[in-house]
Amino acid sequence: MLKELSSVKSFGGFQKRFQHYSDVLSCSMHFSIYIPSTSGIEKMPAIYWLSGLTCTDENFVTKAGAQKYAEENKIILICPDTSPRGDSIPDDDKAAYDFGLGAGFYLNATESPWSENYRMYDYIVFELPAVIESLCPVDPSRVSISGHSMGGHGALTIGLRNPSNYCSISAFSPICAPSSCPWGRKALSGYLGGDYESNKSSWANYDAVELIKDIDSCVPILIDQGSDDEFLEEQLNTDLFIQSISNKNLPINVRYQEGYDHSYFFISSFIDQHIKFHSEFLS
Amino acid sequence: MLKELSSVKSFGGFQKRFQHYSDVLSCSMHFSIYIPSTSGIEKMPAIYWLSGLTCTDENFVTKAGAQKYAEENKIILICPDTSPRGDSIPDDDKAAYDFGLGAGFYLNATESPWSENYRMYDYIVFELPAVIESLCPVDPSRVSISGHSMGGHGALTIGLRNPSNYCSISAFSPICAPSSCPWGRKALSGYLGGDYESNKSSWANYDAVELIKDIDSCVPILIDQGSDDEFLEEQLNTDLFIQSISNKNLPINVRYQEGYDHSYFFISSFIDQHIKFHSEFLS
Repeated sequence: MLKELSSVKSFGGFQKRFQHYSDVLSCSMHFSIYIPSTSGIEKMPAIYWLSGLTCTDENFVTKAGAQKYAEENKIILICPDTSPRGDSIPDDDKAAYDFGLGAGFYLNATESPWSENYRMYDYIVFELPAVIESLCPVDPSRVSISGHSMGGHGALTIGLRNPSNYCSISAFSPICAPSSCPWGRKALSGYLGGDYESNKSSWANYDAVELIKDIDSCVPILIDQGSDDEFLEEQLNTDLFIQSISNKNLPINVRYQEGYDHSYFFISSFIDQHIKFHSEFLS
Repeated sequence: MLKELSSVKSFGGFQKRFQHYSDVLSCSMHFSIYIPSTSGIEKMPAIYWLSGLTCTDENFVTKAGAQKYAEENKIILICPDTSPRGDSIPDDDKAAYDFGLGAGFYLNATESPWSENYRMYDYIVFELPAVIESLCPVDPSRVSISGHSMGGHGALTIGLRNPSNYCSISAFSPICAPSSCPWGRKALSGYLGGDYESNKSSWANYDAVELIKDIDSCVPILIDQGSDDEFLEEQLNTDLFIQSISNKNLPINVRYQEGYDHSYFFISSFIDQHIKFHSEFLS
């Protein structure tokens, strides 16, 4: 059951919010979607936007200013939540911001008690696209994926693992190597068990730096990283990602943007360029 | 004492937030300011943005997407708070959203206990501009004013009463006739006392429809009003404003925008046109 919670005109199209029951996550979920104005029944391409720690489906909608460019390029924007939600969903013992609710890390958990609900990978790759296709005129052969921070990690890992599903990938300030940073190690040990050495086959599936090691081709990727990002040194490991692609001839562009931080002020400053980048491969 | 609370790069310029003590309001206040990138020391024009009920200085900054156009046109954006703030500031008995904190209505209160702090008119017209001039390279002869809802009322009334201070005025969904709507009557009776009949000389100073009756010239004004605005019928009285200017030859353009509501999705859809409008009269 898909329930429309709100519909607001924005740049000529409509910013909408829906509720639906997710069988994959075993809970009720919200997502937001921007549908450009359309004069006919022609199908439109889409970009999935994966948000970062603490976010819901609404942060990007409210703060990024992406609707203008989605309307201009006639691209649907799909914004899922960042974890399963609800009173029945297990959360971090101390309700920490970086594990549990709001911190699903776009993976399929295997450890108890997380494995029943924390299956954001399957939700994003399989279940939500089917819901979107039933809802609006999306062309499933023209879909790209993007995200910020934890969501940048999600966009990179999901995009790299499913090259036939996505025409292009982009990320702002992604967590490039979860196996090698505090946020990622906490998440992967909690959701998947063990540590990198003892559970490498599982952890590597959710680590862009590990995934890229085994890849000789990929769809075009654009990454923007603020040089003044307060999380750059400890959590994001952009340098490891750049090292991992240095000997490969991959269509990946990693850009440092001088003076920008980790916030939505950074995202809004460059979201037009990301949507333009994707539009090249979606047309 | 002016204290910088934050400074974040945005579209090449900087979005900043400051705290200062206001002698006019007898309390500590926050304001936000966007300062475009500048290569020299030339002075820049500015737009004051007055926000609506419940807002602080941050809503416009986060949601409107105006920084892009401020940077492109090299215009400083100044966003004050919507009322005095703090534990010592009197508030509505029931902490209602439409009176007291977050609802200063851009007037100088005369009734106790409001008259000591609720002097947003003097704060916006006199005190804050002096603070801004001490802070950044603003050209005080090139200043315009804009706002939304209660802030649209503020922009219209302050702009109409001070034609030599502002080069142009614009408003989204303004409360055009506070004397004639529930929000306005509650505010004006509370802050100024009496009712329209018993205290007309005072109420009329803060009512754009009343002010425009006595005016034969004004600076250029642009008003955008969503046709699906949930407050249009009961609170905004756009029709009264249009009537009040119908027999005058004033440079005022009131536009109904089909299908838009009262939210920031409406503002963000047209803020580029408002900044472009002001830029014509600020250059």
